[in-house]
Amino acid sequence: MVRNAARRTALVDAAIGVLALEGARGLTFRAVDAAAGVPAGTASNYFANRDDLLRQAGEHIHVRLRPDPERLAATLRGHRDKALVVELMKDVLARLSHDRAGYLALLELRLEATRRPGLRAELTATISRDLEDNLRHHHELGLPGDRTTVVALYLAMTGLVVEHLTLPDILPPDTLDDLIGALVDRLQPRDGPQAD
Amino acid sequence: MVRNAARRTALVDAAIGVLALEGARGLTFRAVDAAAGVPAGTASNYFANRDDLLRQAGEHIHVRLRPDPERLAATLRGHRDKALVVELMKDVLARLSHDRAGYLALLELRLEATRRPGLRAELTATISRDLEDNLRHHHELGLPGDRTTVVALYLAMTGLVVEHLTLPDILPPDTLDDLIGALVDRLQPRDGPQAD
Repeated sequence: MVRNAARRTALVDAAIGVLALEGARGLTFRAVDAAAGVPAGTASNYFANRDDLLRQAGEHIHVRLRPDPERLAATLRGHRDKALVVELMKDVLARLSHDRAGYLALLELRLEATRRPGLRAELTATISRDLEDNLRHHHELGLPGDRTTVVALYLAMTGLVVEHLTLPDILPPDTLDDLIGALVDRLQPRDGPQAD
Repeated sequence: MVRNAARRTALVDAAIGVLALEGARGLTFRAVDAAAGVPAGTASNYFANRDDLLRQAGEHIHVRLRPDPERLAATLRGHRDKALVVELMKDVLARLSHDRAGYLALLELRLEATRRPGLRAELTATISRDLEDNLRHHHELGLPGDRTTVVALYLAMTGLVVEHLTLPDILPPDTLDDLIGALVDRLQPRDGPQAD
């Protein structure tokens, strides 16, 4: 396999665009070549086969969707309180909304993973590692909330992003910030008296 | 358009199976005929076009995924407390896991809706109605929690089901019940002293 790292990245980005626009079934070498604006036959020089292309797309989506390190460092200069967690969660929503194609392509890959055990194993490894990193950082940074808080926020934000990016008129967009604030507030461990 | 209601339902069920197995791009009249085991050309007698087939699949998935009324009535005989909400949420997970093809087909339709404004409008109407029904029932039944509790549970359960049905090894299945219990407990309104 070849060759030019910039061209490889351009082809993987094109593949992510094809996944979002056409679905997993639309992802062919020919479609990637066309989307990248390169001569027919180029993608086949960069990827061993379709499984290899799906795997590299899955890895690269996670690179694209990670926070910008400088922006993250700036946010983390604030007090390590619930308001900071709210800012971090709003950043997640903003980032995934900004790279909507990347997140839709990831959903396509999740569905394709139900049909391809190899892809399932690779996505499981990548997403598990990201979730464990989040859990460790949350703890090391001294952010409020325990392990359950972080897992529950991950699930609720997944639901919110799936809803907002696929059917954006169900939850009015101008209510999402308040909803994120409530999630962060309520998902803290309950150590006060509990209402029942 | 025809004809035999049982056959129409069998064809829509076959279409849901094709969506789950092959993705939205794999959904053709020919594939539906084959999956339903009926002569080629049958589906084209029951659906005006592919959009009509997608719309009917979206409606029927929601019928399939609704709780069994008798089972629901039995559950609701218990005390209207948080434990009952936990039971209801566990029922959601059990039901969607049991009809995994139905839920995966719904995710396929959500993605297809990003490409088809008509399907997007129809799914938005169906899911908004279901969410509003949930909000109203929760309130009328006197279950603990406010509107934010119900919306947040809906989002977190969406995230949990997407994760469990597409990449089931990320969250160990034997931890899901505890996670659901924590979600219901923590997503109640905070009226005690707040930890920060």
